[in-house]
Amino acid sequence: MDIAIDVMGGDNAPTAVMDGLALAYDLFPNVNYLLVGDEEVIKSELVRVKLTGKENITIQHASQVVEMSDPSTVALRTKKDSSITVSANLMKKKTVDAIVSAGHTGAAVASSVIKARTLPGIERPGIATTFPTPSGAFVLLDAGANVDSKPIHLVQFAIMGEIYAREVVGIEKPRIGVLSNGEEDSKGNELSKATHKILSSLPINYIGNVEGHDLFEGHVDVVVCDGFVGNVVLKTCESIAKSITSTLKELLTKNALRKTGALLARNAFTDFKKIVDYAEYGGAPLVGINGNCIISHGSSSPKAIMNAIRVATELINHHVNDLIVERWEELEVTVKEQLDS
Amino acid sequence: MDIAIDVMGGDNAPTAVMDGLALAYDLFPNVNYLLVGDEEVIKSELVRVKLTGKENITIQHASQVVEMSDPSTVALRTKKDSSITVSANLMKKKTVDAIVSAGHTGAAVASSVIKARTLPGIERPGIATTFPTPSGAFVLLDAGANVDSKPIHLVQFAIMGEIYAREVVGIEKPRIGVLSNGEEDSKGNELSKATHKILSSLPINYIGNVEGHDLFEGHVDVVVCDGFVGNVVLKTCESIAKSITSTLKELLTKNALRKTGALLARNAFTDFKKIVDYAEYGGAPLVGINGNCIISHGSSSPKAIMNAIRVATELINHHVNDLIVERWEELEVTVKEQLDS
Repeated sequence: MDIAIDVMGGDNAPTAVMDGLALAYDLFPNVNYLLVGDEEVIKSELVRVKLTGKENITIQHASQVVEMSDPSTVALRTKKDSSITVSANLMKKKTVDAIVSAGHTGAAVASSVIKARTLPGIERPGIATTFPTPSGAFVLLDAGANVDSKPIHLVQFAIMGEIYAREVVGIEKPRIGVLSNGEEDSKGNELSKATHKILSSLPINYIGNVEGHDLFEGHVDVVVCDGFVGNVVLKTCESIAKSITSTLKELLTKNALRKTGALLARNAFTDFKKIVDYAEYGGAPLVGINGNCIISHGSSSPKAIMNAIRVATELINHHVNDLIVERWEELEVTVKEQLDS
Repeated sequence: MDIAIDVMGGDNAPTAVMDGLALAYDLFPNVNYLLVGDEEVIKSELVRVKLTGKENITIQHASQVVEMSDPSTVALRTKKDSSITVSANLMKKKTVDAIVSAGHTGAAVASSVIKARTLPGIERPGIATTFPTPSGAFVLLDAGANVDSKPIHLVQFAIMGEIYAREVVGIEKPRIGVLSNGEEDSKGNELSKATHKILSSLPINYIGNVEGHDLFEGHVDVVVCDGFVGNVVLKTCESIAKSITSTLKELLTKNALRKTGALLARNAFTDFKKIVDYAEYGGAPLVGINGNCIISHGSSSPKAIMNAIRVATELINHHVNDLIVERWEELEVTVKEQLDS
């Protein structure tokens, strides 16, 4: 198993990425790690994390870095020797089974799609993001790979999401829902209604429309939506969670009495942080491409990087892409019939 | 000033509505309140809340109630004597200046639009919902009146949102943003990009695309989006806030030590509840109709009802509808030029 790591990608690169690699190395010692980025930087980082001289760690030099402020297309147009483009090329050539990047999401998506292309029959890939909830987790896709999706795209997200949730997130029979502005069949926009109609005809565990209220209540396991909506939801959730926790922190440190109280109850806050910690779920795969690209949050902690690498190993071990292709072949005729009707 | 109150609407009707009326009555004793619903129920409720014999409180009997499970069209088709339809008719006939309902949102929107119609030049109304943030609040519209909006609708939401935020929420020069999947000009879907282009040409305080991350950080005052997206955002925020607070509560009552800590820090939690309390901001007006319809949350507390009535008084006192019509007349030519270009 060969995994390329974009060492230069992310707000805390290369340190957090290399610390994450060190965590992953202990857990998955049999993976071949191909570290992509500035060779000198990586060499000195390998010394720092005490991973020098390992047979299964090699370096692939890349002279450029896609900055967060760059447009998504820069990786393909002007920064062809960037760590993400080089990683995508390695995936294209099947030199590696997967790539992991905490860098520019748009650049990772664009270069992965252009280089590796989509799986046979799959029109568009989607970013499958796992959201922690009090009762477990749900997977939302697309979290932002594409906008202005068509029903066929959302239907394929549902099919891919089912396999990902089952094989990697470990939900035996994932409940699939279409994100809408109400639960009733009559609710939705043109896109969600057309998707709802097709999914209702498929032999999957489709539970119908779900609305925002359902997301964190444990009612649904796979939430299907257009990438514009999914991206807004993802970022809004991050924003509100951050806002709530920072407000609480501020209020709890306002005076000595509150501080004492917070100190006594500190294990509650530790447990709480664990529940809302996205790092527990690690990276989000770009499902539907002919390869595996795991996108990690720009501000990824070492633990998040480690989990992104774990997701990569599971995608590979469970042959998720083969399962997606097979499943699509099974369902394609029914979907096309519904699209034409 | 005459305001109709849908006494039968909402999960906690009629009790919460009447308790809210009692709160509002003390604050706004000069309003004429027209209570719409079952006459017997209202009479006995007036006794309960000690508001019998008031000259400025009258009853308008309505024999039916739109249930939350009814389709939106029921108020217009089969329940023509429902409290919301009767209220909308009173607004149409200008018997009242505003109506307040915590009932079925879809029914309130549909009956208000059909009965009162939109303001001159305004194509579609939008629900303007105020979200509390640590640093104040922002207004999002449309929160779910319509789906599949066109650029002209979002542009009008921006113009109406500016006036509402200034006149009612009290933000002097509201910063207006279009909700998108990224801040860069290049980000967005077809709808948001076209809207962005038009708003960029208008003499308003337009700050460009905003993304989910900006919402609770105090970066924007008026967030413009399609009602499908807005409704998903609204319900997702409610869901995650509820999930976070209930998780915290559970964790803080797990053992005696944590309970003691939480008790010592209880003022922090009281402050916290106040910040995340939607009731502080009360109802959301359906802006753009020829009248005033304030939609209150289905699970509205008395305080939320009181605040919805306060919003109604402010919409009327500040002549928000006149200001919207004037502002649209000022900007219409520029908007149409941009639409045609």
